[in-house]
Amino acid sequence: MPEPTVNHQVRLAARPSGLPRATDWEFTSEDVPVPDAGQFVVAISHLSIDPAMRGWMNATASYIPPVEIGAVMRAGGAGQVIASEHPGFAVGDYVSGAFGVQEYAASDGRGVIKLDTTLVPLPIYLGALGMTGLTAYFALLDVGRPREGDTVVVSGAAGAVGSVAGQIAKIKGCRVIGIAGGPEKCRVVTEEFGFDAAIDYREPGLRKRLRELAPRGVDVYFDNVGGEILDNVLTCIARGARIIICGAVSQYNEDQVRGPANYMMLLVARASMTGMLVFDYADRYPEATAELAGWYRAGKLVSHETIVAGSVSDFPATLLMLFEGANTGKLILALEEG
Amino acid sequence: MPEPTVNHQVRLAARPSGLPRATDWEFTSEDVPVPDAGQFVVAISHLSIDPAMRGWMNATASYIPPVEIGAVMRAGGAGQVIASEHPGFAVGDYVSGAFGVQEYAASDGRGVIKLDTTLVPLPIYLGALGMTGLTAYFALLDVGRPREGDTVVVSGAAGAVGSVAGQIAKIKGCRVIGIAGGPEKCRVVTEEFGFDAAIDYREPGLRKRLRELAPRGVDVYFDNVGGEILDNVLTCIARGARIIICGAVSQYNEDQVRGPANYMMLLVARASMTGMLVFDYADRYPEATAELAGWYRAGKLVSHETIVAGSVSDFPATLLMLFEGANTGKLILALEEG
Repeated sequence: MPEPTVNHQVRLAARPSGLPRATDWEFTSEDVPVPDAGQFVVAISHLSIDPAMRGWMNATASYIPPVEIGAVMRAGGAGQVIASEHPGFAVGDYVSGAFGVQEYAASDGRGVIKLDTTLVPLPIYLGALGMTGLTAYFALLDVGRPREGDTVVVSGAAGAVGSVAGQIAKIKGCRVIGIAGGPEKCRVVTEEFGFDAAIDYREPGLRKRLRELAPRGVDVYFDNVGGEILDNVLTCIARGARIIICGAVSQYNEDQVRGPANYMMLLVARASMTGMLVFDYADRYPEATAELAGWYRAGKLVSHETIVAGSVSDFPATLLMLFEGANTGKLILALEEG
Repeated sequence: MPEPTVNHQVRLAARPSGLPRATDWEFTSEDVPVPDAGQFVVAISHLSIDPAMRGWMNATASYIPPVEIGAVMRAGGAGQVIASEHPGFAVGDYVSGAFGVQEYAASDGRGVIKLDTTLVPLPIYLGALGMTGLTAYFALLDVGRPREGDTVVVSGAAGAVGSVAGQIAKIKGCRVIGIAGGPEKCRVVTEEFGFDAAIDYREPGLRKRLRELAPRGVDVYFDNVGGEILDNVLTCIARGARIIICGAVSQYNEDQVRGPANYMMLLVARASMTGMLVFDYADRYPEATAELAGWYRAGKLVSHETIVAGSVSDFPATLLMLFEGANTGKLILALEEG
């Protein structure tokens, strides 16, 4: 096999308004990097495709600086070390990290996690055991604080975060209702992820269905979508409910965000709405990953990936799948060897 | 002095849309009630006029059932016992309770508090030592959890709740910024209530002023108003900020509530937005009242009342003063003896 020499990349060319378009991206090629002292180089095999990427494309600083125009698009990914001048990483090691939308990345190891692929297959480390799984874990357990018997509602229930959040709530003895788009996703939510019930938000009567399924109210609402669904759930919260603001995928491509008009239900129900970011829990990743891996290996936690095989040039189209609701579970772009 | 025989009342005649109108009220007269066994009768001297009253007029059940059409309008008040068949209340006792918009009320004593008017003047028991003062106390301390040195922002800062909340935050060693409408209220907020700064929301540049006054961000936001002000403060919150949802007076007369479009700042800042109701703290009223009275008597807490002298028939116009922002501190309708 010839040594790879070209590193194909996707860079941000312009800041999108609404859904990202072809003209917002630029495709570039560079030489495959050579590691400096203290560095290693990864051949990226899998890219994590996440709704949060849309926010990183905006000019406004958020919890993380925007991707600069002209920079390689930020992305989590996994792959194998192919060259190393770093004492902690050897050629052949499997790793995950924020390597960007490209085929090869040089790294000094910061934020990089070594993966034991004999324990679980590599894509799972971007799914239930990846940042999305960890997000579900800390958001549900630390912010949602579910008690046995609680009614937990999860939006984006068929997605990477929601599917794991609902399954953890089931493990903790809650009654779990998922909200997802379309009958097929709803089927997956109950049959594959084991939620007690699923509501198709594309059907009319979301609020009525919620009232039927959660007659004593919603104790924990894990929100990944925002918009109209958040407003509907707000009308059904129980006294002391905890609402986790984990995402707002329905709003990421809107110029004007729809705020939750029913937010005064927080007062009526003495409830809270709390935002979280997984990065704050970095020192607890090992314990959480170990617990998630234990559940996975015990068959209590299903990790579902939608894997698109292609090249980095398929990244723009793959990202749009998220906003079309085309994926179930974690969306991954698997890079085929050129 | 002739014995009173007529009890003038104000009843809810219709559910308002927008600001309450004259046709939403009905004026009735009844005989002054005679206490049954276990009851006493109060001659009401002061009525508490509160923004929450607008919510009680709506048909939708909230944290408290709506006032029924035809019922005496719900109101807190204070007065003196004029007849008693209740072992715990004697003629001459000063009391406060939810006596309604009328001149006389029979009560079985539930929810009624005896007032020591030798300690503080009676109107203070509807102001800084009343439900609005208690609301400020528990909302700030239990939900806001201010730490010494925190930056605390209070909207409705010249109002009954806001003025007390800001003063307690000062007592707790915080830097306190009030938001109020108009230069005179802003003057009162800093000069009389001792806030560190005040922002007139009627002037342009609210967000810029906030950024200047809170360069390290807002740690606690005590929200009494909702709407645009809430959205502006959300853009200035510090990491881990606590937002107290205590009221939304800017929205009470709107058919369509404006939800906080910037609520995703909760995620960016890992912040929370929590609703509270003072009734949940009923078992702690005595301790809180004692602490508030101590601060009041030590000169650390100013209680400011806007007292309108009149009769119950002045209630509709007095209520509208709240939504015109015409009052500073606690708005009270003092009933002149007929």
